[in-house]
Amino acid sequence: MSRNGLLLNCDLGESYGSWSMGMDESVFPHIDQANIACGFHGGDPVTMQKTLQLAKKNNVMVGAHPAYPDLVGFGRRSMNCSETEIIGFMHYQMSALDGMAKNIGLTMEYVKPHGALYNDMMKNDDIRLAILKSVSDFHRPIKLMLQATAASEEHQKQAEALGVELIFEAFADRCYDDDGKLLARNQAGAVHDQEKMLQQVQQLVEHGTVTTASGQTLSIKADSVCVHGDNEAGVKAIQSIRELIQS
Amino acid sequence: MSRNGLLLNCDLGESYGSWSMGMDESVFPHIDQANIACGFHGGDPVTMQKTLQLAKKNNVMVGAHPAYPDLVGFGRRSMNCSETEIIGFMHYQMSALDGMAKNIGLTMEYVKPHGALYNDMMKNDDIRLAILKSVSDFHRPIKLMLQATAASEEHQKQAEALGVELIFEAFADRCYDDDGKLLARNQAGAVHDQEKMLQQVQQLVEHGTVTTASGQTLSIKADSVCVHGDNEAGVKAIQSIRELIQS
Amino acid sequence: MSRNGLLLNCDLGESYGSWSMGMDESVFPHIDQANIACGFHGGDPVTMQKTLQLAKKNNVMVGAHPAYPDLVGFGRRSMNCSETEIIGFMHYQMSALDGMAKNIGLTMEYVKPHGALYNDMMKNDDIRLAILKSVSDFHRPIKLMLQATAASEEHQKQAEALGVELIFEAFADRCYDDDGKLLARNQAGAVHDQEKMLQQVQQLVEHGTVTTASGQTLSIKADSVCVHGDNEAGVKAIQSIRELIQS
Amino acid sequence: MSRNGLLLNCDLGESYGSWSMGMDESVFPHIDQANIACGFHGGDPVTMQKTLQLAKKNNVMVGAHPAYPDLVGFGRRSMNCSETEIIGFMHYQMSALDGMAKNIGLTMEYVKPHGALYNDMMKNDDIRLAILKSVSDFHRPIKLMLQATAASEEHQKQAEALGVELIFEAFADRCYDDDGKLLARNQAGAVHDQEKMLQQVQQLVEHGTVTTASGQTLSIKADSVCVHGDNEAGVKAIQSIRELIQS
Repeated sequence: MSRNGLLLNCDLGESYGSWSMGMDESVFPHIDQANIACGFHGGDPVTMQKTLQLAKKNNVMVGAHPAYPDLVGFGRRSMNCSETEIIGFMHYQMSALDGMAKNIGLTMEYVKPHGALYNDMMKNDDIRLAILKSVSDFHRPIKLMLQATAASEEHQKQAEALGVELIFEAFADRCYDDDGKLLARNQAGAVHDQEKMLQQVQQLVEHGTVTTASGQTLSIKADSVCVHGDNEAGVKAIQSIRELIQS
Repeated sequence: MSRNGLLLNCDLGESYGSWSMGMDESVFPHIDQANIACGFHGGDPVTMQKTLQLAKKNNVMVGAHPAYPDLVGFGRRSMNCSETEIIGFMHYQMSALDGMAKNIGLTMEYVKPHGALYNDMMKNDDIRLAILKSVSDFHRPIKLMLQATAASEEHQKQAEALGVELIFEAFADRCYDDDGKLLARNQAGAVHDQEKMLQQVQQLVEHGTVTTASGQTLSIKADSVCVHGDNEAGVKAIQSIRELIQS
Repeated sequence: MSRNGLLLNCDLGESYGSWSMGMDESVFPHIDQANIACGFHGGDPVTMQKTLQLAKKNNVMVGAHPAYPDLVGFGRRSMNCSETEIIGFMHYQMSALDGMAKNIGLTMEYVKPHGALYNDMMKNDDIRLAILKSVSDFHRPIKLMLQATAASEEHQKQAEALGVELIFEAFADRCYDDDGKLLARNQAGAVHDQEKMLQQVQQLVEHGTVTTASGQTLSIKADSVCVHGDNEAGVKAIQSIRELIQS
Repeated sequence: MSRNGLLLNCDLGESYGSWSMGMDESVFPHIDQANIACGFHGGDPVTMQKTLQLAKKNNVMVGAHPAYPDLVGFGRRSMNCSETEIIGFMHYQMSALDGMAKNIGLTMEYVKPHGALYNDMMKNDDIRLAILKSVSDFHRPIKLMLQATAASEEHQKQAEALGVELIFEAFADRCYDDDGKLLARNQAGAVHDQEKMLQQVQQLVEHGTVTTASGQTLSIKADSVCVHGDNEAGVKAIQSIRELIQS
């Protein structure tokens, strides 16, 4: 863990069967928390076991990364599910990873919803509540990772009411608006270049703030920074952020 | 549990999404062990939760009923999988049910492979070994249910070598050959009528034997009897067997 | 076909693998148009072939019944798909049924989207346009079945612009609001009893109108009436409607 | 097409959703026949449409590449299917591709089973017969591509009895045994290096023979050579073979 407590988390284990995705082996040495796909958007059982072994070898904290049941859409399409359905597929995926982690002596410590489920959790109260309930009803305490925004205090209260501990994450390479939300990817300036990304992380580490698209300084209380290891450029960015945070 | 220790087990929770299968609610009051589908041949997450709730309400022991990944084939088609693949999908399915059981205060106590995976386990040494390893490598002791045959002692030794405890099951409505195997369903006399079925159970309870197709008396060391609740006739048969065993 | 040109259509072939759904064999003799599931919400290849054989035997017109790729949700959950994705899965499912129909000498004449895809088509312009494009781009003329509403003329114009011929359907057992939409199933009076259902069909046949929830008389220009054969009550209702329309 | 009639075929369109596989854009300019995945082992609808567009742009002949329904296993695991099941999934996949090809003005001309289905077709008479029937029962004439072996004449007779025309393919980079079968990949010398591969193609082109593992000269009557474009080395090998055959 880093001097200032800011951890690095990354989505991993998103290969599926014969299809490979992500540079997992290169990413693992540089991160603290692995959000591991659980089979519904990626991550078949054999991939899950390989990914857990990499987490063990690299001494990385393990979290579940459950998704809507949408393999061909990679969990990126919002699906109109009931609370019962959400709790059902959350418990199924969390349990699958939890047991497989235990089998090799690891402990699943948190859960971070994937893709459209994550976005829906951030903007839809009913879905966030369903997810909080699913975490609360899990048979042992598990933390929920979600985005640090201007609504973090409200989310904290909702979680506390159900006895769930939260992990707040910030984004390194994405530009924030004044509400602490991310600019949509198709907007100009939504994704930072390497220099701006490192500036944003530096500011997060030193001041706990980001500079928004409008130039405002926004306080972001983050425990972890989300990074991406899809390709070599991503892996290099992770290494740069790692150096920054450890220094 | 019955006077003589012979339990009744049944495959349950095999509905999938909007498709219903089996008369689970009628079966649960009469059985001791529920082999619950884990999503690969039947049993989506919501169905699994409903089935676990029924097990809890009826105080029935819970087991995992994992299968080959073949939803459209209902796990009835043999698939040529590697040991790594078998261990992977066994752990995934066992873990999913295990966690969901714990979430409502139940303990998954055993695992019984489904359909083609069960048949392959009984006739193929490599597959039985892969399954035994998967059970042995699970993070806590789980029993494996398999068929009582003339090879039971050999299977017992294989299991002991890996520290796995076995549950042997017999079949109520199927005719045995002299090796303790079941006659194929398409052979004459392979499936007993109600009267012969009850005779077979009676003989199992009182003498621990079955009368084979050739008329021989074969010793069958069974802990449990497999029953089927697909329709009303099946449910009635289960009730008759239940009365016989409890008397 | 009936005296007045009003046809009966029904969703069929929605079984999947070992799971049975719908009383298809009892329904086929009484209907004119079979909306056949194409594998994405129900209807595996073997089921599709059986259903096509039933259509042939009963001399029933064949239509494709494509859905969102959501087997466990039976295509009932809206999914946030792009136009490219919608056109892709429409063409895939339409083509699969089209070829299998041709194999036994049948012609697929129309397409009716299923479940959430149908509802989204009725209320979302972009999705309706994507579906119209997919039908327009099919390699031979196919009709599109959709709901007769107060917006039917507008839908007709949109379809004509793309060279697509429409089939408008009315619902026998559902109560309409003044916009020609169906009352949501959870509202009081949303689903008619047998008597009201027959009255609604009678009125449709004789006057081309329905009486809405508020008591207004609404003109509904329908070519076909949608009926449901999920259970014995449904099959009886179909028979009653059939007698009414043929008389 | 090449001077001597020997064509190059390649498996293409095997990406799935967000997962990419194969260097399709680099391969298409150098080949004659594209075996396009149909959704059961790879190739979702959007991928199929992209691949068909590439075939059109490069003026490449289109064939269906159907597989066992085993996405996570990439169709590489043998599944114990009935004739009805095989014909069902063959027709479903062939029809899907056929219609989508027609939609952009292309004609699907042949079918080549994928992976385990291909291997089972070559070694199991019942499966080959089921596949031949499925091709024979398709609503218009389609050729079947299979491996040229010492049994080719027998296969030719079986196909003629059902009115099916065959395309025989040879392998460029695989060592043959004296029966005209390929050495299993795990045997020494089973996969040729670049030099031996080109020698084998040269010999096929000039003499219609291969040199087997034991040193024998075996006559191989091939219409097409199977090449692989999984990576840059594969694409370069395809280019070399292309030059050889065209020269």
